[in-house]
Amino acid sequence: MHAETNPKDVLTIAGREFNSRLIIGTGKYASYEQNAKAAEAAGAEIVTVAIRRVNVMDPTQERLSDHLSPEKFTYLPNTAGCFTAEDALRTLRLAREAGGWKLVKLEVLADQKTLYPDMVETLRAAEVLIKEGFEVMVYCTDDPVYARRLEDVGCCAIMPLGAPIGSGLGIQNPINIRLIVEQSKVPVLVDAGVGTASEAAIAMELGCDGVLMNTAIAEAKDPIRMARAMKHAVIAGREAYLAGRMKKKMYADPSSPLAGLI
Amino acid sequence: MHAETNPKDVLTIAGREFNSRLIIGTGKYASYEQNAKAAEAAGAEIVTVAIRRVNVMDPTQERLSDHLSPEKFTYLPNTAGCFTAEDALRTLRLAREAGGWKLVKLEVLADQKTLYPDMVETLRAAEVLIKEGFEVMVYCTDDPVYARRLEDVGCCAIMPLGAPIGSGLGIQNPINIRLIVEQSKVPVLVDAGVGTASEAAIAMELGCDGVLMNTAIAEAKDPIRMARAMKHAVIAGREAYLAGRMKKKMYADPSSPLAGLI
Amino acid sequence: MHAETNPKDVLTIAGREFNSRLIIGTGKYASYEQNAKAAEAAGAEIVTVAIRRVNVMDPTQERLSDHLSPEKFTYLPNTAGCFTAEDALRTLRLAREAGGWKLVKLEVLADQKTLYPDMVETLRAAEVLIKEGFEVMVYCTDDPVYARRLEDVGCCAIMPLGAPIGSGLGIQNPINIRLIVEQSKVPVLVDAGVGTASEAAIAMELGCDGVLMNTAIAEAKDPIRMARAMKHAVIAGREAYLAGRMKKKMYADPSSPLAGLI
Amino acid sequence: MHAETNPKDVLTIAGREFNSRLIIGTGKYASYEQNAKAAEAAGAEIVTVAIRRVNVMDPTQERLSDHLSPEKFTYLPNTAGCFTAEDALRTLRLAREAGGWKLVKLEVLADQKTLYPDMVETLRAAEVLIKEGFEVMVYCTDDPVYARRLEDVGCCAIMPLGAPIGSGLGIQNPINIRLIVEQSKVPVLVDAGVGTASEAAIAMELGCDGVLMNTAIAEAKDPIRMARAMKHAVIAGREAYLAGRMKKKMYADPSSPLAGLI
Repeated sequence: MHAETNPKDVLTIAGREFNSRLIIGTGKYASYEQNAKAAEAAGAEIVTVAIRRVNVMDPTQERLSDHLSPEKFTYLPNTAGCFTAEDALRTLRLAREAGGWKLVKLEVLADQKTLYPDMVETLRAAEVLIKEGFEVMVYCTDDPVYARRLEDVGCCAIMPLGAPIGSGLGIQNPINIRLIVEQSKVPVLVDAGVGTASEAAIAMELGCDGVLMNTAIAEAKDPIRMARAMKHAVIAGREAYLAGRMKKKMYADPSSPLAGLI
Repeated sequence: MHAETNPKDVLTIAGREFNSRLIIGTGKYASYEQNAKAAEAAGAEIVTVAIRRVNVMDPTQERLSDHLSPEKFTYLPNTAGCFTAEDALRTLRLAREAGGWKLVKLEVLADQKTLYPDMVETLRAAEVLIKEGFEVMVYCTDDPVYARRLEDVGCCAIMPLGAPIGSGLGIQNPINIRLIVEQSKVPVLVDAGVGTASEAAIAMELGCDGVLMNTAIAEAKDPIRMARAMKHAVIAGREAYLAGRMKKKMYADPSSPLAGLI
Repeated sequence: MHAETNPKDVLTIAGREFNSRLIIGTGKYASYEQNAKAAEAAGAEIVTVAIRRVNVMDPTQERLSDHLSPEKFTYLPNTAGCFTAEDALRTLRLAREAGGWKLVKLEVLADQKTLYPDMVETLRAAEVLIKEGFEVMVYCTDDPVYARRLEDVGCCAIMPLGAPIGSGLGIQNPINIRLIVEQSKVPVLVDAGVGTASEAAIAMELGCDGVLMNTAIAEAKDPIRMARAMKHAVIAGREAYLAGRMKKKMYADPSSPLAGLI
Repeated sequence: MHAETNPKDVLTIAGREFNSRLIIGTGKYASYEQNAKAAEAAGAEIVTVAIRRVNVMDPTQERLSDHLSPEKFTYLPNTAGCFTAEDALRTLRLAREAGGWKLVKLEVLADQKTLYPDMVETLRAAEVLIKEGFEVMVYCTDDPVYARRLEDVGCCAIMPLGAPIGSGLGIQNPINIRLIVEQSKVPVLVDAGVGTASEAAIAMELGCDGVLMNTAIAEAKDPIRMARAMKHAVIAGREAYLAGRMKKKMYADPSSPLAGLI
């Protein structure tokens, strides 16, 4: 989604406006407290929560929501750990009953080794969820053709992987990410693969509307500092995209014109 | 120079402290006014000025200093356009007489096509300048062996090129930049080659102490916006370097651990 | 398919053995004659033919088969230009009736801009064709999950794209190609994206069983010479894969041990 | 050196003609016998020998020349292990006295960690050697300016490193290699850095006249097979360079034109 025409440059997902373009996860942190501090440092407005794992509501145990106030952060329930459409559907219906969540992140994984999405199951689940009234942000491969199908059935955000979840390898196929950005009318967010700040900037320079990451922050030696790095990286990449970069040149070009010398 | 041990994380060059790690040029801008606005947006504290080209002191014409106050910005005179050691020496001696500048950026170019430095002439000029009391920041190739020689003769900052000046091709040889960073006791700043925000972040993630750029900002479609992007990119890369990035993994690793599912 | 265990190192597709691992196309050549010379220079044993375009049998016009003898080359009919499963099915059924071809290359394209495969339609067509007794080599994305589905329904070769058809951009996502190679029990051939010799070698070094290309040869300035380059490149990459490359080292390692100096 | 105009496409160094463009080393092999078999498999006509290390003439011990006949292979003595110009001069003068060698490979190393050349010492040694009548092939950085100086003093071949010796990291800065190729009138050979076959092909596609390698073959799991891979890779890259590759395209282009469908 090209945002040049948006004077405020806000990120709009399913009608909701966000100033931050960086969504962070809630796995792998040393504690909910560290997670909360990282979210603050990242300037995040959305945090994604694995329904199957994170304790959001059991008041007898420590809850994520004690640290990350749902009034301040938009909780984005996700279906991490679901390997069939049915699993994902069941998980999200429970989430809606329990927490009233309507905006969700769908992921249907194919196997534990790569954690790649199973696109057949993902498309099937997306269709059902949208019919049931969910607003579906969808984790997917970087296949532009499938991304179009997902948008056609009504997904409100396309979230292609840049590289395997937790790999930190950076965006493997910038051409595909760019093709998806060019064709999409809903926001495109790179989900998975970013390992360090420059890679978040690259995602944004390709024209993505946002980035979701977990491991890059949670497994940095200093997660809070990395969260701050990522905040700046996403802004840097976004501004660079909007600014329009210089043309590349094969040969040198004097930065100081050589005419008019002393 | 590894800055992890510096609690304030300031950039110290020849005993002077700077909070910004982004040095910008003063060539190719549409006007001095635009140049000044870019410097502000970039958060720069140092601007480099081609002695042979930029009018700093002639009060009968528009002066760069009318827009970029020398009280607010450190002026770093450079020898752009000099193709021999003698040319560079003459230019900098004039600069010292005229403006009292002692901290200077030496560049002795080999040819107009690549604008690569001539390292034989550069080393020779550096030795003379340092004996004459100049504090010499030096534009050089990314050869770690020559960088060590330049540090040994007393240069106060090593400024290897990332790619040809004005090319916007990004850092071509990160291994060499990294080797220079590891061996140097004076600051290392990438000078030339950065084309967009992510590339400035990469320079900093390699452990560089700063980045100097001109064309990437001046030739962006919106130079002021790109200057802002670069400010964030340099901070992002610096923070990511200090935070310590996650390890790369060849295969996927669940960002949401799969144990303890519902 | 790991071929280390194959003493003869032949490529076996659907029970047929080939010594050459380079398949070439029959589009974009200046003439059938040039095409034939390129096939000879490439050492190809298989040529792929667009059923909808190439004249194989009409004896009143110049025929490809007048230049490339079907007795010497295995003709691999393909469905280039088909944008639905039905189109592809109809085309291949005609091919079987007309020429008796059973071993075919299926491609169902999504759009004319990217010429990417439509994986939903491709999988659907593959299932039908295999039930009808075809031996299906299948052009697909580099999604390992879909590749597994295609193998599961009985495709006899997986042919992921390295980059868009005709782009010459080289393999964009070596991780995905490698994941497909590791999981597949049928041959994996990179189909599309190779632009020059080193890129064909890279495909083979990743462990692929072969490479199919058309534009890289047909649009080289000297197609015959490039065909010869590609023959050597595929052998080079194959041999390097089987030889097992040296480990990469971050720092230098003396090629001539420094002990025992004069 | 652009060889397009050479109908025979031989490599000419200091007036001697070679059909092979692959020079191999004589370090790190399990035995002289393995080394010899690798040289055969590589199709090499030149082998480079570290004067300080390899026994070429002492008849009381096993000699390299017992396996690699100096009548069949051109021996290229090198100064591996020399860290000053004086060391290199002494070593090569001994070599000339002992074996009559005039065509030599000069390398003056800066340190044991990177094994990078010390360009100041290298240039100094080259000047002396050339005055003394040696034909000097010179190991150097990829700095085009220094490469020009080395050619200007009379070196008969420029041998820039692609990456640190023994690293197997591939060519780090193709722009510099290309700039050196474009400006040089003597042959340019990449010396150091190649790790696998595709990287040798890349060196040749950049227009280099040849490649020298040691570790990539000697430390492969199967050195003889890798030697064969490298022979094909160098031919592939050379032929691809001469053939003139297709233009890269950002978007897909039908390999089978879509006009004239059934």
